Amino acid sequence: MELVSSDDIAAAARRIEPYVLRTPLLHTERLSDELGCRVLVKAENLQHTGSFKPRGACNTLLSWQEQGELPERVVTFSAGNHAAAVAYAGRHLGVTVTVSMPESAQQAKVDNVRRYGGEIVLTDDLRGTCDRLAREYDCPALYPFDLPAVIAGQGTVGREICADLLEPDLVLVPVGGGGLVGGIATAIADAAPDCRVVGVEPALSNAVEQALAAHEVVRLPRGAPTIADGLAAPFAGEHTLAQIRRYVDDVVSVGERDIETAWRDMITATRLLLEPSAVVGLAALRAGAVPVPEGGTVVLVASGGNAAPPRD
Amino acid sequence: MELVSSDDIAAAARRIEPYVLRTPLLHTERLSDELGCRVLVKAENLQHTGSFKPRGACNTLLSWQEQGELPERVVTFSAGNHAAAVAYAGRHLGVTVTVSMPESAQQAKVDNVRRYGGEIVLTDDLRGTCDRLAREYDCPALYPFDLPAVIAGQGTVGREICADLLEPDLVLVPVGGGGLVGGIATAIADAAPDCRVVGVEPALSNAVEQALAAHEVVRLPRGAPTIADGLAAPFAGEHTLAQIRRYVDDVVSVGERDIETAWRDMITATRLLLEPSAVVGLAALRAGAVPVPEGGTVVLVASGGNAAPPRD
Repeated sequence: MELVSSDDIAAAARRIEPYVLRTPLLHTERLSDELGCRVLVKAENLQHTGSFKPRGACNTLLSWQEQGELPERVVTFSAGNHAAAVAYAGRHLGVTVTVSMPESAQQAKVDNVRRYGGEIVLTDDLRGTCDRLAREYDCPALYPFDLPAVIAGQGTVGREICADLLEPDLVLVPVGGGGLVGGIATAIADAAPDCRVVGVEPALSNAVEQALAAHEVVRLPRGAPTIADGLAAPFAGEHTLAQIRRYVDDVVSVGERDIETAWRDMITATRLLLEPSAVVGLAALRAGAVPVPEGGTVVLVASGGNAAPPRD
Repeated sequence: MELVSSDDIAAAARRIEPYVLRTPLLHTERLSDELGCRVLVKAENLQHTGSFKPRGACNTLLSWQEQGELPERVVTFSAGNHAAAVAYAGRHLGVTVTVSMPESAQQAKVDNVRRYGGEIVLTDDLRGTCDRLAREYDCPALYPFDLPAVIAGQGTVGREICADLLEPDLVLVPVGGGGLVGGIATAIADAAPDCRVVGVEPALSNAVEQALAAHEVVRLPRGAPTIADGLAAPFAGEHTLAQIRRYVDDVVSVGERDIETAWRDMITATRLLLEPSAVVGLAALRAGAVPVPEGGTVVLVASGGNAAPPRD
C-alpha cells in the first residue's frame, strides 16, 4: 500500500491554507509545573468548526476539485466533528453533504453540523448507512480517516508543530480511526526525526491497539460508550494502520476515570474549552502509560472543543 | 497630570517580554457570521495566570527594579486576577505578596492566587485593608489600575493587536478601574488612529461611566454584585480617568442578563474558557450599546478566564 508522504502533507498545507486556521501552540505553565517538562498544547479546538477535521475534509474535496472530480454531493459517517468539517468544506465548495451520526451524538456536535448546512441521518450503523446513502445518491463517501487525502490533511497539524517548535521530544495524539496520528507522525518523522509520536486511545474503544496486536483490521463489538465520543471509531482503516505501523512510535490506551479527571483539569489549566477526546494525552502521561521526558518538550494535540463544559 | 505615552507602552513591552505570553488574536467565524463583521478575539485568558493582569504587574515591579527600588514585599487589592498576577510577578522577582480580596471572591481566583504563593486577606474593605497592610509592613502598594506603570503594561495588549492587524475599526475593552482600556486606547491612538476604542462596564458597577459624567472620581456604594466580578472596581482612578478622557472614544454599560447570555454563547462560539468579565464587549454589541461597524473588523478583548464554566 502506498503511504502518505511528507510531500503529500506539504501539498495539503498549500491547498487548504485559505480554509483553515493556523492554530496556536500554547505554553501551559500549570501542566509544565505538574509534569516537570515543558508542555505545549496544539489548540485544534480553536480550528474552524472546533476541531482539526476541516484539514482532511478540505484537502480531500480540493484534491477532487483539482482532478476535475468535485461531486455535487458527498456522504460520510462521523461522531460529529468530521461531519461538521465536511459540511464546512462542502459549504465553501458548493457540495451538498449528508452524514450518518450515532443516535447518542453529543448535542453540541449535532448543532455544529446543522450550522454548516449538513444533513444528518442518526443511526447506530454508521458505516453501513453511509455506504447505503452513497449508493442511493450515487455519490462518493468522504470517509473520516481511511483516505490518503484525509491523512495528508490531518498531517498539516504536525507540520505546523515543527514550524513553531524546533525540537519537540514527544507529541501525544488522540486516536480514533488513526488519521490524525498517522498524518502527524509522518510530518514529524520528516521534520523532527528524533521526536517520539505516541497515539492515545480510550481503553473502551481501542481499535488501533487491537489491530496492531492482531496484525489486521479489527471491528470492535459495540461496548460501553467512552466519554471520549470523538475517538469511538468502530475500526481502524487499512491506510491509517499502514501509516501508523511505519511512523508512530507507540499507541497506548487510557481508562475512563483518567480521561474524565484530565478533562476537568486540562480545561482549568489551559482556559480552553475542550472535549474529552482532546485530553487523552494528558491522561496517558498522568497514568504512566507514556513516560514523561523529564525536562523535555511535550506537545499535547488538543483535537477539538465540541462539548458542553463539564459540570462541577 | 502626566499621561502614559505610547513610548511608555513600547518600553513596557520590552521590559515584560520574558514574563508574559504574546496571546493569539483569534478569528471567530460564528460571531462574525452573527454580527456581520469580522470578529477577532484577543485571548488574554490564555495569558499566564489566566488574565491580562501580569502585563501591568510585571511592568511595575520591573520598573521599580530598574530604579533600584524593588521592595521585599508588596501589597495590593483585587477581585483576584490582579492578585494572582502580582503573586506571579513576585514569585519571579523574589517579592513577597499579600493581597486583600473580597469575601465573595470566586474560588477559581482564590486558588489561582495561592498557586503563585500569594497571601490572601479576605475583606470587604479592599482598598482600606490594602493601605493598612502597606503601613503595617512598611511596603509599597501595587494598585490594580491607578498607576502609570500598570496602565503602560496593560497597553501592551493594544500594541500586540495593532502588530497583528493592520486596520481594526473597533476595539471593545472590559472596564473595571480603567487601566486596561486606558492603556489599549493609548497604544491604538498611536498605531491605528482611525480605530475606535470603546470601554464596556457592567451597569451594576459603572465607576468609570459615573466618573466621566461627574467629572471626578466617584466611589460606588456597595450594591448588588455583578456576575462580571473582575469588573467590580469600587472606583476609577485619577490616572485612568485622565487617560480615558484623552484616548477612549466611549464608555458604555451592559446589563446582567446580557452579560450572562453572552458568557455562555461566547464560550461555545470561541471554544475558550472565559470569565463573565471577558464577554461584556459582545454583550454591548448585541444590546446595541455600541454600533456594529458593518463589514468592518472588530476586536473583542477577552480579559480573562478564571471562573468555573457556566452550568447548563
